[in-house]
Amino acid sequence: VLLAGRGSSDNAARYAQYLLGAHNGLGVALAVPSLFTLYESPPRLSRALTIGVSQSGQSPDIVAVLREARAQGGITLALSNEPESPLSRAAEYTLPLLAGPELSVAATKTYSAQLFLLGHAERGARGKSRALGRARARAGLARRGDRTEFGPRARRGPRFGLRASLIVLGRGFNYSTAFEIALKLKETSYLPAEQFSVADLLHGPLAMIDQDFSVVLLAPSGRSLVDVPELLARLEARGARVLAISDAPDVQRRVPMHLALPRGVPEWLSPIVSVVPGQLFAGALAQSLGHDPDCHAVCLR
Amino acid sequence: VLLAGRGSSDNAARYAQYLLGAHNGLGVALAVPSLFTLYESPPRLSRALTIGVSQSGQSPDIVAVLREARAQGGITLALSNEPESPLSRAAEYTLPLLAGPELSVAATKTYSAQLFLLGHAERGARGKSRALGRARARAGLARRGDRTEFGPRARRGPRFGLRASLIVLGRGFNYSTAFEIALKLKETSYLPAEQFSVADLLHGPLAMIDQDFSVVLLAPSGRSLVDVPELLARLEARGARVLAISDAPDVQRRVPMHLALPRGVPEWLSPIVSVVPGQLFAGALAQSLGHDPDCHAVCLR
Repeated sequence: VLLAGRGSSDNAARYAQYLLGAHNGLGVALAVPSLFTLYESPPRLSRALTIGVSQSGQSPDIVAVLREARAQGGITLALSNEPESPLSRAAEYTLPLLAGPELSVAATKTYSAQLFLLGHAERGARGKSRALGRARARAGLARRGDRTEFGPRARRGPRFGLRASLIVLGRGFNYSTAFEIALKLKETSYLPAEQFSVADLLHGPLAMIDQDFSVVLLAPSGRSLVDVPELLARLEARGARVLAISDAPDVQRRVPMHLALPRGVPEWLSPIVSVVPGQLFAGALAQSLGHDPDCHAVCLR
Repeated sequence: VLLAGRGSSDNAARYAQYLLGAHNGLGVALAVPSLFTLYESPPRLSRALTIGVSQSGQSPDIVAVLREARAQGGITLALSNEPESPLSRAAEYTLPLLAGPELSVAATKTYSAQLFLLGHAERGARGKSRALGRARARAGLARRGDRTEFGPRARRGPRFGLRASLIVLGRGFNYSTAFEIALKLKETSYLPAEQFSVADLLHGPLAMIDQDFSVVLLAPSGRSLVDVPELLARLEARGARVLAISDAPDVQRRVPMHLALPRGVPEWLSPIVSVVPGQLFAGALAQSLGHDPDCHAVCLR
């Protein structure tokens, strides 16, 4: 399977890379669009499923990937919010996001809709489909924010105590969530927030962390929690400030600043829920810094 | 093809992703090691070539990827500086780096050796093999530093005028180089330098760039130069400080602070040469900030 997307859609594709690998045993690559456009030397795709992910369906290089894959006789699928877009026309099949117009410049609801649709790629036991519905409901609750514990807390995000550098950590299924929250922080607060996998950070870049760092840590329950106690000890020893996003009682006890996730969501679906407090936090932070989270496109001009 | 590596070796794998895609038409994925270790749900690899890249050959999760691929009956290859390492034992085939002991904690010569070996994967016209030899020679010259224009300039790197935030930009073949230079800056200067593809940056995160940013731009001659004039105009308009690494006369004229690359290296081989001034710059910057570029492992303890 080849997945192609830019920005938030690329982060949704990264979720699918884990999902299709872990549950369906498929080899999954994230596309390198410049091989199709810049270098005009695309790989052979006649026996691949190529999935283009794009909210607007307009991104010319993602359209180029799908067009080439289809010309080679491969299976092509578009995930787009615009069923009449160039991407949808380029692909043999389209799954529409049905999310309604994306009013936010920094994509939020369409990211959730992409994850939800990709979640269906899960090889289909019935219990799993019910779990997907429950995760969506919890993300919905989460989105209405004030009804959950973390809604108001995320809005108090700025009190988190931002330091000179900001990074976002995740692992496994939520590595994608770390990418997406870091992107929202860049797009709305103009902060150079970089994402890391916990495993990669411990392999080297941990050396740069000191008391000048704020760390947003994605830590939903599941196997990826295995490194978290060691990680927290190291971050503490280096004087970093940590904000955790977690449903795990151990993590919540250990990290005073945390945004609580609803419980009972399986790890493979947790990205659908765990991104929401990160989005709310990014929005609140942007406003506290005097930015309009939606001025992005204007600022770019 | 599935490529697995951590840190610098992962960046070398990213170079191979472009190389094998552009010149050999292969579908190439960068491995997600946690599918093999954390989730114990590896993809099917019996019909894949799986390449493990590791200087020391010790990284347990990269060894796990190779072991699983071999157990499934796939073709397995290790690129390692240690032919007796666990990685080499796990793989059916080994290509030794033959770089001698890596004395630097932040891998440098072994990264170059990995790129050089991977360059041989290029489907074999004879002229191309000669070009590879020439690129190696130029990287060697570059490494002796003071004999080229950019050697002493890289050592004056700190005068570049470092600002609060630092990013490294590249595209196409040199996207891998941007990752590697950013990693060297993190490992030796403890600066949170993030890499971006020029295409991704223009797609959104450009909004965060302002006069608080220093930008290291990889701009060797070739097709990936196409976006550079627009990029430079945008960076200038936003007040960022730019250091270019380039052999292109246009770029050198336009960017007063540049490190000149030797001319005549084709784009597909330029990563072998273009990483060198970035490594020298990172080393000089670390020293000017009072760090020993090799204290990394000690600092981590």
